[in-house]
Amino acid sequence: MNVQNPIRSEVATGAIPGSRKVHQAGTHWPDIRVPFREVAVHPSAGEPPVTLYDPSGPYTDPTVDIDINRGLARTREPWVVSRGDVEIVSQPREVRPEDNGGASGAHLAPAFEAPRRVYRARAGAAVTQLEYARRGLITPEMEYVAIRENLRRQASDPALRDGEDFGASIPDFVTPEFVRDEVARGRAIIPANINHTELEPMAIGRNFLVKVNANIGNSAVLSTVADEVDKMVWAIRWGADTVMDLSTGRNIHNIRDWIVRNSPVPIGTVPIYQALEKVGGVAEDLNWEVFRDTLIEQAEQGVDYFTIHAGVRLAYIPLTAKRVTGIVSRGGSILAKWCLAHHRENFLYEHFEDICEIMRAYDVSFSLGDGLRPGSLADANDAAQFAELETLGELTKVAWKHGVQTMIEGPGHVPMHKIKANMDKQLAACGEAPFYTLGPLTTDVAPGYDHITSAIGAAMIGWFGTAMLCYVTPKEHLGLPDRKDVKDGVIAYRIAAHAADLAKGHPAARAWDDALSRARFEFRWEDQFNLGLDPETARAYHDETLPKEAFKTAHFCSMCGPKFCSMKISQEIRDAAAAQNDVADGMADMAKRFRDGGGEVYVPLRGGAAD
Amino acid sequence: MNVQNPIRSEVATGAIPGSRKVHQAGTHWPDIRVPFREVAVHPSAGEPPVTLYDPSGPYTDPTVDIDINRGLARTREPWVVSRGDVEIVSQPREVRPEDNGGASGAHLAPAFEAPRRVYRARAGAAVTQLEYARRGLITPEMEYVAIRENLRRQASDPALRDGEDFGASIPDFVTPEFVRDEVARGRAIIPANINHTELEPMAIGRNFLVKVNANIGNSAVLSTVADEVDKMVWAIRWGADTVMDLSTGRNIHNIRDWIVRNSPVPIGTVPIYQALEKVGGVAEDLNWEVFRDTLIEQAEQGVDYFTIHAGVRLAYIPLTAKRVTGIVSRGGSILAKWCLAHHRENFLYEHFEDICEIMRAYDVSFSLGDGLRPGSLADANDAAQFAELETLGELTKVAWKHGVQTMIEGPGHVPMHKIKANMDKQLAACGEAPFYTLGPLTTDVAPGYDHITSAIGAAMIGWFGTAMLCYVTPKEHLGLPDRKDVKDGVIAYRIAAHAADLAKGHPAARAWDDALSRARFEFRWEDQFNLGLDPETARAYHDETLPKEAFKTAHFCSMCGPKFCSMKISQEIRDAAAAQNDVADGMADMAKRFRDGGGEVYVPLRGGAAD
Repeated sequence: MNVQNPIRSEVATGAIPGSRKVHQAGTHWPDIRVPFREVAVHPSAGEPPVTLYDPSGPYTDPTVDIDINRGLARTREPWVVSRGDVEIVSQPREVRPEDNGGASGAHLAPAFEAPRRVYRARAGAAVTQLEYARRGLITPEMEYVAIRENLRRQASDPALRDGEDFGASIPDFVTPEFVRDEVARGRAIIPANINHTELEPMAIGRNFLVKVNANIGNSAVLSTVADEVDKMVWAIRWGADTVMDLSTGRNIHNIRDWIVRNSPVPIGTVPIYQALEKVGGVAEDLNWEVFRDTLIEQAEQGVDYFTIHAGVRLAYIPLTAKRVTGIVSRGGSILAKWCLAHHRENFLYEHFEDICEIMRAYDVSFSLGDGLRPGSLADANDAAQFAELETLGELTKVAWKHGVQTMIEGPGHVPMHKIKANMDKQLAACGEAPFYTLGPLTTDVAPGYDHITSAIGAAMIGWFGTAMLCYVTPKEHLGLPDRKDVKDGVIAYRIAAHAADLAKGHPAARAWDDALSRARFEFRWEDQFNLGLDPETARAYHDETLPKEAFKTAHFCSMCGPKFCSMKISQEIRDAAAAQNDVADGMADMAKRFRDGGGEVYVPLRGGAAD
Repeated sequence: MNVQNPIRSEVATGAIPGSRKVHQAGTHWPDIRVPFREVAVHPSAGEPPVTLYDPSGPYTDPTVDIDINRGLARTREPWVVSRGDVEIVSQPREVRPEDNGGASGAHLAPAFEAPRRVYRARAGAAVTQLEYARRGLITPEMEYVAIRENLRRQASDPALRDGEDFGASIPDFVTPEFVRDEVARGRAIIPANINHTELEPMAIGRNFLVKVNANIGNSAVLSTVADEVDKMVWAIRWGADTVMDLSTGRNIHNIRDWIVRNSPVPIGTVPIYQALEKVGGVAEDLNWEVFRDTLIEQAEQGVDYFTIHAGVRLAYIPLTAKRVTGIVSRGGSILAKWCLAHHRENFLYEHFEDICEIMRAYDVSFSLGDGLRPGSLADANDAAQFAELETLGELTKVAWKHGVQTMIEGPGHVPMHKIKANMDKQLAACGEAPFYTLGPLTTDVAPGYDHITSAIGAAMIGWFGTAMLCYVTPKEHLGLPDRKDVKDGVIAYRIAAHAADLAKGHPAARAWDDALSRARFEFRWEDQFNLGLDPETARAYHDETLPKEAFKTAHFCSMCGPKFCSMKISQEIRDAAAAQNDVADGMADMAKRFRDGGGEVYVPLRGGAAD
């Protein structure tokens, strides 16, 4: 408990309207409880509830008492400890002033004070999910993920397969053994630092549901602890599957502690940002020792994946010289600056095996950063970008040799006709390690709307095989996202990810769309809102013009009014046809009866807004 | 002048920030003045201004005095009259009470009163752009369109061709003769009723820039004249190329008059909506006479294209009986109801040649409606949809026989993997007549965000060859769009259309992106805002965190702050490399000098928000 400096942050809690939190237990591991969001529909539908994937954590469970000063329950700690291959770090790295950018007094964010143990692998032990998978072990994390991906479908349920998956291997039903095999092959990762025991495990891989990452984090310009925790909770409430803390200002150690301790989703970081802070912001002063120290600091905190820009090789930097927008990755530009200042190979590349050994000891996953990604359409798919991708493929094999889980970051700004080449090259170069892309943005001309320019590219590359989509908010290129921007970005990317799942023919994807469409056709307005990606907004938009409760059962909406409602008319057509054994014959029959009966298909609205 | 009942509507006028209206004169027709939006960049860039396509009309020209009671200048009237093939209708159809749904007294919207002449073709004359094109005539409309599509590029400018156009025939430079040939082949239309003399002509065709339509219109539930005129002006301000008036309540004749008289863009309607009002909302009571009367009424008003659901054939209706969402097109469901009630073939199909003869006399273009489009993913690409598409192909040939310009409407709700089949089938079935699609929406689960679910599909189908994209607003499925929804829908669709132009490799498309990206890279913030699709929003978002004027010249933004600005670092890399003759050698050199010089690449921000 943070007794001295309790944070009075009010994070968003409570169920999403119309949903309730349900759990499914494991079979191999009976004590695991996998959460889902269940949406019951109106009894008139005669349909079972719809089960949705739920990354929102305990915050949407009304039975859980939330206190961010205490952090989430460490449910996963027994799983980690009981494997018998970790040890308690007797002297964890101590927090130093430079970890928080030298902030002091009123400028220093409070430390997260609830005590916890810090773990690392015993000497010689391999504690990564990849190593377990290779050894044939099905961990609780793997079974958790298997249950989660099936959305409460049963193995015996018929799988609806309608899609084009471009050579993926999506199963009809996800078994724990399938998860193990995908992790063992390196085609999926389960980012799960042994020190992030608050985690609800999830998988990132081409043969699983497409995931979404949300970036948060303060900068030198803006920051508070409470805001960042709130943004994390807000992002997962709307569907972010992982969160990256991209803080760059002061207090980043303490802010990160608050985020990890309160996060049920994997947390990613870019350690070079903090390393740069520790050397006073002077890229040339970066060195292996300060970077190594930062990796250990963050691994002990429980960060689940690190973006490492080890592919920004000295020889590739001249390839960026004639670009329209040069190097647009922060990490990429910092390392390019270091390489040029010293005229030496990137020290992350040279120390890559050392990095692997550290990450392996905590099961931190690699997110191999694309420091040379294009920042404009003009630079898409150029020599610099693809040279780095080849190097990331080489590094993937090194990481795998060390048993470290690995995914690969991708662009950026890419016009539609050049998107598929990115996926194809990534698959070929990186041995099917999961691809994790930022957008891509399909045009440069819409600052303020880059959640849309990039959702287009994200949906497409997700379809082609990208495993996780890094969101872009409307503020991209303009400023740090606030709460509204975070939600807008997450929703746009949930749309892109789900559109990709549908197009891939993921067997668990379309039941949701069909349930919502049936609700729409049957004028079950409440069901339509509740099944929506954002029930609050759907309801608010409907109520802007038809606020009265009576209109929640009306067989029309304000778009067409009662006379012109096509849904209503065609429902009658269907009902009439269904009453006949033979549909085609029935139509002639129906036409006669319909006309004889007066042919009224709507009841004019009396009074109210429609008058 | 509307003396008795002046409308006090305040429509949005004035230049878009950072832009000015410029005009280019014709060569064949020296009196035509084609408008563009010109964005000058900062002198430090050493670049010419950027020319953007501008459908916003005189409203963004500060030199024009706007009064919606008077309507826009009838610039096109001399073009129409001077061809010598039209006559003044001595007794235009008189407005009857049922044209406005029987509204009276305070409920009756004021008539638009400024006098005008009504034209139609002389007996035997063919006044459509299609017929002129076939006869080898280059009309002012055709030259206007040719100039407009080139965005002030010259024939001698090198054409940047980088794209995949799936068999389109996009020229390096658009000549009036090319426009004529495309119109003659039926591959493009120039919707231009001879009674819409306020029009600034534009083309819809696969080999031109992709266009965007915005729907407005009142319903039985909501309406005012001023709101609809305001929405039309607002929609074209943000980039709508055509506007459909989908009004269905009372006063629709008068509202339409106000819209057409004040619109520089083509106006489309769905005449069956008004015909249904005239028969008291009882679909079975529809008949050819009331429909014919409505066509003439609207053609005399100057409507440029009519959606005609002549493809909803009796035999196809049973194909919809087992759909998840039946028939979701309003017009389609009205006609299905009529067909069933009478058990007769659709009277629009049976009277199709009569319809052609009327439309030919005013040069109203067909938008052949897809009354059986899918309303959910489950119904996409089904037998009903494609049966109707085959019929639309058959009707296209009939329309062409009568010299009537024709485009074809398309879906709807379609998952990504089924989009291309729509385009391919349309091209094959309809002889390359322009395709005009609604979205498609790529998932059903996001009510409140369907501008995004559909922008994904719209960008893709635009890339594949769709000529015009009908916008979808965030309110789709929930209510009538307000002003904010109209803007959000138009911007999302301008993004989709431009992303499509880029992917097709349209030679006029990418200069805009490159200019904006250079501005971004060079921290020309004002240029970045002004070149954006929505300068006001871009500026507002930036200023939320860095409002001071000083930050408009800052070499960073609040996303990364001054230390981590990758753009700044990579600019130095480029500058250094450019100073060398040989880039690769220069890098080594630069690395040394850079380090020797202290290696500072940023100036720490003193005071202000970054402290």
